[in-house]
Amino acid sequence: MKILIINGPNINLLGTREPEIYGALTMEDINTQLFEYAKELGVEIETFQSNIEGEIVDKIQSAKKDCQGIVINPAAYTHTSVAVRDAISAVALNAVEVHISNIHAREEFRKNSFIAPVCIGQICGFGADSYKLGLKGLVDFLNNKVEK
Amino acid sequence: MKILIINGPNINLLGTREPEIYGALTMEDINTQLFEYAKELGVEIETFQSNIEGEIVDKIQSAKKDCQGIVINPAAYTHTSVAVRDAISAVALNAVEVHISNIHAREEFRKNSFIAPVCIGQICGFGADSYKLGLKGLVDFLNNKVEK
Amino acid sequence: MKILIINGPNINLLGTREPEIYGALTMEDINTQLFEYAKELGVEIETFQSNIEGEIVDKIQSAKKDCQGIVINPAAYTHTSVAVRDAISAVALNAVEVHISNIHAREEFRKNSFIAPVCIGQICGFGADSYKLGLKGLVDFLNNKVEK
Amino acid sequence: MKILIINGPNINLLGTREPEIYGALTMEDINTQLFEYAKELGVEIETFQSNIEGEIVDKIQSAKKDCQGIVINPAAYTHTSVAVRDAISAVALNAVEVHISNIHAREEFRKNSFIAPVCIGQICGFGADSYKLGLKGLVDFLNNKVEK
Amino acid sequence: MKILIINGPNINLLGTREPEIYGALTMEDINTQLFEYAKELGVEIETFQSNIEGEIVDKIQSAKKDCQGIVINPAAYTHTSVAVRDAISAVALNAVEVHISNIHAREEFRKNSFIAPVCIGQICGFGADSYKLGLKGLVDFLNNKVEK
Amino acid sequence: MKILIINGPNINLLGTREPEIYGALTMEDINTQLFEYAKELGVEIETFQSNIEGEIVDKIQSAKKDCQGIVINPAAYTHTSVAVRDAISAVALNAVEVHISNIHAREEFRKNSFIAPVCIGQICGFGADSYKLGLKGLVDFLNNKVEK
Amino acid sequence: MKILIINGPNINLLGTREPEIYGALTMEDINTQLFEYAKELGVEIETFQSNIEGEIVDKIQSAKKDCQGIVINPAAYTHTSVAVRDAISAVALNAVEVHISNIHAREEFRKNSFIAPVCIGQICGFGADSYKLGLKGLVDFLNNKVEK
Amino acid sequence: MKILIINGPNINLLGTREPEIYGALTMEDINTQLFEYAKELGVEIETFQSNIEGEIVDKIQSAKKDCQGIVINPAAYTHTSVAVRDAISAVALNAVEVHISNIHAREEFRKNSFIAPVCIGQICGFGADSYKLGLKGLVDFLNNKVEK
Amino acid sequence: MKILIINGPNINLLGTREPEIYGALTMEDINTQLFEYAKELGVEIETFQSNIEGEIVDKIQSAKKDCQGIVINPAAYTHTSVAVRDAISAVALNAVEVHISNIHAREEFRKNSFIAPVCIGQICGFGADSYKLGLKGLVDFLNNKVEK
Amino acid sequence: MKILIINGPNINLLGTREPEIYGALTMEDINTQLFEYAKELGVEIETFQSNIEGEIVDKIQSAKKDCQGIVINPAAYTHTSVAVRDAISAVALNAVEVHISNIHAREEFRKNSFIAPVCIGQICGFGADSYKLGLKGLVDFLNNKVEK
Amino acid sequence: MKILIINGPNINLLGTREPEIYGALTMEDINTQLFEYAKELGVEIETFQSNIEGEIVDKIQSAKKDCQGIVINPAAYTHTSVAVRDAISAVALNAVEVHISNIHAREEFRKNSFIAPVCIGQICGFGADSYKLGLKGLVDFLNNKVEK
Amino acid sequence: MKILIINGPNINLLGTREPEIYGALTMEDINTQLFEYAKELGVEIETFQSNIEGEIVDKIQSAKKDCQGIVINPAAYTHTSVAVRDAISAVALNAVEVHISNIHAREEFRKNSFIAPVCIGQICGFGADSYKLGLKGLVDFLNNKVEK
Repeated sequence: MKILIINGPNINLLGTREPEIYGALTMEDINTQLFEYAKELGVEIETFQSNIEGEIVDKIQSAKKDCQGIVINPAAYTHTSVAVRDAISAVALNAVEVHISNIHAREEFRKNSFIAPVCIGQICGFGADSYKLGLKGLVDFLNNKVEK
Repeated sequence: MKILIINGPNINLLGTREPEIYGALTMEDINTQLFEYAKELGVEIETFQSNIEGEIVDKIQSAKKDCQGIVINPAAYTHTSVAVRDAISAVALNAVEVHISNIHAREEFRKNSFIAPVCIGQICGFGADSYKLGLKGLVDFLNNKVEK
Repeated sequence: MKILIINGPNINLLGTREPEIYGALTMEDINTQLFEYAKELGVEIETFQSNIEGEIVDKIQSAKKDCQGIVINPAAYTHTSVAVRDAISAVALNAVEVHISNIHAREEFRKNSFIAPVCIGQICGFGADSYKLGLKGLVDFLNNKVEK
Repeated sequence: MKILIINGPNINLLGTREPEIYGALTMEDINTQLFEYAKELGVEIETFQSNIEGEIVDKIQSAKKDCQGIVINPAAYTHTSVAVRDAISAVALNAVEVHISNIHAREEFRKNSFIAPVCIGQICGFGADSYKLGLKGLVDFLNNKVEK
Repeated sequence: MKILIINGPNINLLGTREPEIYGALTMEDINTQLFEYAKELGVEIETFQSNIEGEIVDKIQSAKKDCQGIVINPAAYTHTSVAVRDAISAVALNAVEVHISNIHAREEFRKNSFIAPVCIGQICGFGADSYKLGLKGLVDFLNNKVEK
Repeated sequence: MKILIINGPNINLLGTREPEIYGALTMEDINTQLFEYAKELGVEIETFQSNIEGEIVDKIQSAKKDCQGIVINPAAYTHTSVAVRDAISAVALNAVEVHISNIHAREEFRKNSFIAPVCIGQICGFGADSYKLGLKGLVDFLNNKVEK
Repeated sequence: MKILIINGPNINLLGTREPEIYGALTMEDINTQLFEYAKELGVEIETFQSNIEGEIVDKIQSAKKDCQGIVINPAAYTHTSVAVRDAISAVALNAVEVHISNIHAREEFRKNSFIAPVCIGQICGFGADSYKLGLKGLVDFLNNKVEK
Repeated sequence: MKILIINGPNINLLGTREPEIYGALTMEDINTQLFEYAKELGVEIETFQSNIEGEIVDKIQSAKKDCQGIVINPAAYTHTSVAVRDAISAVALNAVEVHISNIHAREEFRKNSFIAPVCIGQICGFGADSYKLGLKGLVDFLNNKVEK
Repeated sequence: MKILIINGPNINLLGTREPEIYGALTMEDINTQLFEYAKELGVEIETFQSNIEGEIVDKIQSAKKDCQGIVINPAAYTHTSVAVRDAISAVALNAVEVHISNIHAREEFRKNSFIAPVCIGQICGFGADSYKLGLKGLVDFLNNKVEK
Repeated sequence: MKILIINGPNINLLGTREPEIYGALTMEDINTQLFEYAKELGVEIETFQSNIEGEIVDKIQSAKKDCQGIVINPAAYTHTSVAVRDAISAVALNAVEVHISNIHAREEFRKNSFIAPVCIGQICGFGADSYKLGLKGLVDFLNNKVEK
Repeated sequence: MKILIINGPNINLLGTREPEIYGALTMEDINTQLFEYAKELGVEIETFQSNIEGEIVDKIQSAKKDCQGIVINPAAYTHTSVAVRDAISAVALNAVEVHISNIHAREEFRKNSFIAPVCIGQICGFGADSYKLGLKGLVDFLNNKVEK
Repeated sequence: MKILIINGPNINLLGTREPEIYGALTMEDINTQLFEYAKELGVEIETFQSNIEGEIVDKIQSAKKDCQGIVINPAAYTHTSVAVRDAISAVALNAVEVHISNIHAREEFRKNSFIAPVCIGQICGFGADSYKLGLKGLVDFLNNKVEK
């Protein structure tokens, strides 16, 4: 089983960016943790980051070939991208939306997600751990489906 | 470390209630799973369910004495209860909001949560696994805090 | 065939409460009328009133055992209770929403009902007769279903 | 006592029109039922249907001469006609709004009624029985008024 | 110079209809007054009333042949008819919107007019005198235009 | 009978100000016309203009002593002044709101009037003639009242 | 195959009405073009125009007997008529909504269509050609369906 | 004269709960102050607190027997409870709404009160003194009424 | 300790103005009461009334020199004046907003206050007593601050 | 005459993507059809697809050199891209917006188009035929312009 | 060339008023800087401040005689004054709106400006430098116009 | 000191694009002016333009290395890009938002800026001079900071 981990715009600045909101870990630190955790869970992962909405769409499309699921932190595109939403619907892969910060406790416009309605679910607020929880949730979900 | 697991209205009907939305496990099944999982995580849990908003407020208040955190599925009260929100703020315990279904993919009025802004974060859409992910997220969060 | 008649908050004050809006009959008067009318219709009824949202949820849940339908005047909870709505959905019993006054001719916030969308229909404005009409409508509906 | 039964646009297609929403009875079937039921209730009825908003206004105006009340299914004009509302106010006859389907469980725009606030009440969701319940409710209402 | 006076739905009930809002004069009384007043102003008038939106549209269209202006009380269609608005735009005749009651002091939905933005202006609240003021305003407007 | 004519902010610039919207007459020209027209109608008038909201309130208050009615063009304060509205309510004089331009055909925010709901009515769009129509409407209204 | 072409209010004034928006062709010119084009496409057409909402409803209902589809320019009723919408749903004929002007580039209230959601699709902005494109689109659609 | 003092959800946590918003006094401290102050004002008081909406409704209903007025801090239910509003209307007792914090200076949703429109008035922002001011205001109001 | 009492527009008409809403006391009566009450409370007061928004701003600014607090009834400016709000923020004096009538039980637009969010609190609905309660609340607040 | 055909995000997945909404043809199939159809119409076409908003902007800009018009299916960017809108305005080329599905019959957010107001018109709902209709509409439009 | 510098309400408190938002310079300091800067730019300036909306209107009107442009910080009136907007339109002088603070980063209601749409442009957020930038922008704008 | 000048989508078409809104200068002309002006101000500048949202994000991120501030004309992305907003927050560089046209005097959707709230301020409406004013404002701001 292979899972694609997608990070949206500005996530590549993690660790330096507003650490009181986003924590001190860099995206590389988080990815390292995720590779280890994936091994524990017995799955393969691939990581991807882009600041360009359309490149994220491209990546989601290409995931169809060899991935069984997607963990995505769409960051700013959560609130503005119908294109990413449509890409996930189009490839019909199971996806999980994750956020480092608690988006429900910030600016009003961060409460709306174009992406969540086409995902299995949404996890937010656990810092870097949101990714781990999302990966675990997705893998368990896919395993259950296989069993059935 | 002791964690309180709170379930809001109608969760006691799980397993029989609209299984295509909420799954086939009963609340007792989920609690049994959670007791086992809590043992794995090395924490104690207490479970509570009520259909009465004010009893949930009472329970949250009493948790202050002996709990370090709360995992709460406020169910219908997610969207209508300022009282539960204020209770969580008032006791100043770390809480995690969980939902069995993906509330962002249902009726418009289920997108708003009065509770999430005063929690660490929100997890929804993973069926009974939402509780496990919430418990794990909370315990890791509390352990990190302790370490610091 | 057994039908549960539920009355929400403040209905127990009927007869004394703003009689120009709600009429001069007490809830007991209405119940007496309903028991007679039920006999006429050849059904059994049980009546219940509570000012507590969660107790109404409890009662709806318990109705699953021995009732075939519900006539409910949710009163103030019409406009604020997702919990009562979810309870009706959860037990999958046929329900009819009734109101003594014409809620469409009063304050703006009384026009919205969280309950009506999960009921067979809504009857309002006929004073105490709203209950009779609701009971008749429900019994005829259930009889038709049985015939099919 | 004479009651006018008014049916708005497209009701004349009943029986053939989306039977999963509106049922299998034609308007003529319903009218036949109503004539029988009126006899039972001891009242005279006249039936009228038009697809033209202004003709319904005309009919309501003319009802002033010889009718004591109106049962109206304004259909589509429920949501768009101030003219029908004003006609009912202008003739000052007691009216009851009825709907075959549960308008509160359909498209958002079907929840608002321009007509209901100038009626005794609203009945919806009982299929063809909505008319019978409306007629009964109206006749009982008028009899009570007479008694007083 | 010939002016068309148009009255919308339910205006034909004036005098009998809610006299506390609309006054005691009938539409015929008002028309008689207007014919006299028109003579004073040295213009010819034609009066028309219909409860049917489309007939009002028809009449406005036909006015193009022999009228120089329109005084219209669109009544209920003020708030709902884009068709009447488009008819006035289409014939490019100068029109004045009049109302017997002060529409700005009644229900919220009566504040919006689809018609006023394509008229010279709006006059409301002067009872039957609104027509006279409207006729005078229109005639003076047309005379000024001619002079230029 | 004495009528107060009030002009709000920037009306003193008439004639020079955007003549394509407001016409070529100055406020003095209009006042001269009104004094003549008042003579015709057999009433006395007093004219007043201020750019200061509170001075308009002062003037309305003082009108109570010796005026029987008010013709007011509140100009910009139409859309923003609760104080002018309350002043008219407080003195309980009959008032007519007039506008030179058709406020219903301009920016969205010019459609709402805080003043009109406490007036007899509103006249707009007839250029300088709006004042004459307003004065005539008010005088006729007051004469009718006296007669009764 | 027979197609009904319906034109709503004021379309009968085409050619004389605001030609900068609607073009110089009359409705008769357009119909002549459509009869020719229909011949080209191998289908029969019937044309109909009314300013009366309910007559359009009548016509749609009667089309059920001998037409396979409808091309409709609802004009003003696009934005206000639930009755026309319900008629199209009720007869279950495939319909195409067309507009001469680009309704998305005009007043805000012209952007909403009650009709489009129950049609195959919407075509607007191509002047008289919108009808041709609509007819072609509909005929191709029906032919494809037949082939399947 | 006897006055009922009602406290809504979470007020029982005062003193420990977010003291920067709610102050350092406990509910017991406040009650003690109120008993003393009542003695000063020459009235009897009874105090009540519940976290359960329906129990507050019950208490308001029972107050009808022996109380002349109510001072209520509905806390979270201020913003969500139509049931408490209806209870106050139903018993027709004079009530005063009080708040410890200035609800107009907090989250947007705290600005709306379902309760205030059926009370004499609202007092907020004076900490524990809000109760005293409310009690004094109510007692003076009732004394004035008696005198008249 | 010196407190400034500010009254906004039309308060100078009290006693004559809509006494069913505002009571029979004049502003002078209220001021006389307040001077006596101030003596009781051991503070000095100065009273000020203006119908001009900017003069109220001027007065608030000048209060900085010799006042410790402000009791303000902004009347109509409550709902429209950002300038008064900014003045209170700018002088950083503690202020209390008072209203004679219960603004939460009147027109919708009277519910919003631009002033209250920069005040200690708001008191409304107690007639002339609202001022006394406001003065008492403010003086107690200031005394508590001094004690700390 | 050369026309640019632009396809927005995820259109490259056509044929595999939710065929019940978007049909079974691939984008290549559609393009092949369009090249043939263009030949029929006597025009040259160039096709372009990108998932990246800014690349679509780039392409529109470059079209200025050698194209006379644009047929664009902006897909998800229809609802979110002011940049594409501004690009079309900036190059001042005639454009037609097309959609495969009927966007007026889907999610609420798909009803708004930033692009349509700067186009000749919009065509939606005809599956792959929407492109052909759009191309035909555009070519006829351009030919008419040339003729004039 | 002469430029009028207008300051709205509370700007006269600068330096003492919330210095963390508005900076430490007084209005006199800023004016002194502006007189120097004006000399540099080769223009004459006149400064004016008032807390009274109508006096600002008066001043704008009088500027017509001898000024070529206006730099205005409308302060609180930015968000509430249609009168100031109309004054600027009426005198047809070029104006620039400036703000000391970044109004787009403060309360929601400060984002809307009634004034900016009738100005050349808006400058905000640069503290006292906003005036200098505004003056420079205006002078350059006027010089360019003169050159043309 | 080095400042990055960023131009968003379609700015590269300046001079050719709607010159009545955007002026006749090309982006190259503006850049040339800015290089000269920067020399005058004693700072270094770098210019960048992209039509791709994510490339602008990339550029802002990279500016962290060697720039002290940013002047950005986000063009269309002003109104739609949370990603650009987050990038500016993330790099914590001082930024100034500039616009050639007066965005407050155009379409409603152009009034909202996602970017301005995270900038020092906003300058709009001065044509190409907006950049110069923005650069001057930023440099003065940074110099002041350094001095402190």
